[in-house]
Amino acid sequence: MSTERYERGARMLAAVDGPAGLEVVENLAKSFPDFARYVLEFSFGDIYAREGLGLRERELATVAALCALGNAQPQLRVHVHAALHVGCKPAELVEVVMQMSIYAGFPAALNGLAAVREVFAEVGIQLPLA
Amino acid sequence: MSTERYERGARMLAAVDGPAGLEVVENLAKSFPDFARYVLEFSFGDIYAREGLGLRERELATVAALCALGNAQPQLRVHVHAALHVGCKPAELVEVVMQMSIYAGFPAALNGLAAVREVFAEVGIQLPLA
Amino acid sequence: MSTERYERGARMLAAVDGPAGLEVVENLAKSFPDFARYVLEFSFGDIYAREGLGLRERELATVAALCALGNAQPQLRVHVHAALHVGCKPAELVEVVMQMSIYAGFPAALNGLAAVREVFAEVGIQLPLA
Amino acid sequence: MSTERYERGARMLAAVDGPAGLEVVENLAKSFPDFARYVLEFSFGDIYAREGLGLRERELATVAALCALGNAQPQLRVHVHAALHVGCKPAELVEVVMQMSIYAGFPAALNGLAAVREVFAEVGIQLPLA
Amino acid sequence: MSTERYERGARMLAAVDGPAGLEVVENLAKSFPDFARYVLEFSFGDIYAREGLGLRERELATVAALCALGNAQPQLRVHVHAALHVGCKPAELVEVVMQMSIYAGFPAALNGLAAVREVFAEVGIQLPLA
Amino acid sequence: MSTERYERGARMLAAVDGPAGLEVVENLAKSFPDFARYVLEFSFGDIYAREGLGLRERELATVAALCALGNAQPQLRVHVHAALHVGCKPAELVEVVMQMSIYAGFPAALNGLAAVREVFAEVGIQLPLA
Repeated sequence: MSTERYERGARMLAAVDGPAGLEVVENLAKSFPDFARYVLEFSFGDIYAREGLGLRERELATVAALCALGNAQPQLRVHVHAALHVGCKPAELVEVVMQMSIYAGFPAALNGLAAVREVFAEVGIQLPLA
Repeated sequence: MSTERYERGARMLAAVDGPAGLEVVENLAKSFPDFARYVLEFSFGDIYAREGLGLRERELATVAALCALGNAQPQLRVHVHAALHVGCKPAELVEVVMQMSIYAGFPAALNGLAAVREVFAEVGIQLPLA
Repeated sequence: MSTERYERGARMLAAVDGPAGLEVVENLAKSFPDFARYVLEFSFGDIYAREGLGLRERELATVAALCALGNAQPQLRVHVHAALHVGCKPAELVEVVMQMSIYAGFPAALNGLAAVREVFAEVGIQLPLA
Repeated sequence: MSTERYERGARMLAAVDGPAGLEVVENLAKSFPDFARYVLEFSFGDIYAREGLGLRERELATVAALCALGNAQPQLRVHVHAALHVGCKPAELVEVVMQMSIYAGFPAALNGLAAVREVFAEVGIQLPLA
Repeated sequence: MSTERYERGARMLAAVDGPAGLEVVENLAKSFPDFARYVLEFSFGDIYAREGLGLRERELATVAALCALGNAQPQLRVHVHAALHVGCKPAELVEVVMQMSIYAGFPAALNGLAAVREVFAEVGIQLPLA
Repeated sequence: MSTERYERGARMLAAVDGPAGLEVVENLAKSFPDFARYVLEFSFGDIYAREGLGLRERELATVAALCALGNAQPQLRVHVHAALHVGCKPAELVEVVMQMSIYAGFPAALNGLAAVREVFAEVGIQLPLA
């Protein structure tokens, strides 16, 4: 059932995060297949697939929210990676995370910058940015 | 002291939210003048004034974070207003807030949409969006 | 599209909260029709409709979570109402909320009890419970 | 049972917040007598009655925590009142709340200052502080 | 003092989580004996020992709340273990945690499922559930 | 620019946490120099440098807030260390963290006590306190 949403979600996830994102969901599916399906269908098939907001803006908003919430470090790393994948510039990501110091406090921003540093190291982006 | 940062912050706040934002800070200054100064100097003079991220993106990120945090309804309304002021389209704001259902849950998104509805009513934007 | 999930969600919501729940969603749909659809489709059509956990247990878990999160008073009231509707006893709801003092602190429990008191007054349940 | 803890808790609450605190608990007891008893026994009879930290410091810590958590405005107002009652100076309370901007963000601090302003108005403390 | 509550709490904790729970508290008592006593006396001696809600329901509510709060992974694992110990079925726990995606977002649910997977592996429950 | 605030912040940080605090900020500056500067300028140069509240009280308030927020363990450890450095007694820190069980729940307090235990072990303070 709901094959269409699932397919659309898988395409969106690939567009958003490339093979890395699909691997996360496939790994989840080994233990919790229904929940992996909801991630694809709802998050990516319903929401990310909507018109009205660009993927770059969607990823900046997600990085902002996950950094502010502060209890989702693995997901924050995934979305820092995804944000780069959809074309956000490294400097934009550093700016969004630094800005979270205003709204969620300096510890949230510091822990967000730690996630940024980890992902940047993986993909070969040098810090400090020039 | 720090006249330069204060002036830059006041200019940025005016750019971001027009007279409405300045009024919020002036009102705060009547009771807590030092804190009103920090809001201008740090939030707007230091952070918003930075290059590397557009004001539209900054406001989308802020709306996302405040909606996700869920304990800052007055500030969320201010920034929905500011987001419109710097050129975010109504549909973009609705999209960002709906997207928060993924990261912070449906109640956070629902309370965010209530803030959106309130601000849209004040500025004469009809819902549902066409 | 997704008519089946929508219909199943509407039936589940009616089972969970009676006309009151449908009214909340219909009201939401006037301003944000897509999001109202997601609430029905995902929350009720996908999750609440699943086997493996009874509706009483689902509502107790939801009341616990909303009380603990502490930033979703309107939704907490809706689910205290729904919990009674699916057969939770008033005393069970008071117990769940009091228990949240352990996990989320006394203020969260106190604000949860305020929501309980409000809903109990609406439906005519006397406090203190005998 | 546990008469000793209850009595000690009632004495501590009176010491911490005077008649205002006892009134809050008596009001709670009308609807939720067991929970009102736990508030007195555990919060005040067990924790506040301990040696090793002064009441001024306990109240400053509580105001800090409630401001940072941001989902407990009624309790924050009670403890701003209590902090004044145990001898915290108005300026100390304003300082603690402003400091929360660092750890929990500016919205948390702004909402905390709103609680401070409300309580100060009730007890006749003029803002801005001289 | 308060021997009765302490004894009742120790019996309840043993009923709720078996030797594993007592070991956690004994370990805590080596560094913080008073706080270990409060955990037994208040959490288990006062709250869990109350009538009006079954232990299965209490544990489902606790798993829901800890998953939603998202900042208490060690305690969440303890209570997933305890929930199995008092007779919750594995599928019920997976359902409760998946349901938290609605109220606290997908990252909270994903991190909750990671805790479930860890505990299930320890006690020999195979995933995916048949 | 803003040399005066930076210098004052560096002096305050040294007063608050000694070489350990400066090392944290210097480490941050290697990857995110601007943000390291804001930490010094705003947190320490603006806020901690203010009159009206003693450093001991500032650190107790910070430990309370970080423990209650529960998503900032690295920063909590830094401030437990700093609190000892400015003269808070070990027992005062244990009391503040235990008190957070009332306002943020037992898991927050337990995770806070784990941070306390870690820092106490590093600096050679024996637990349980005599």
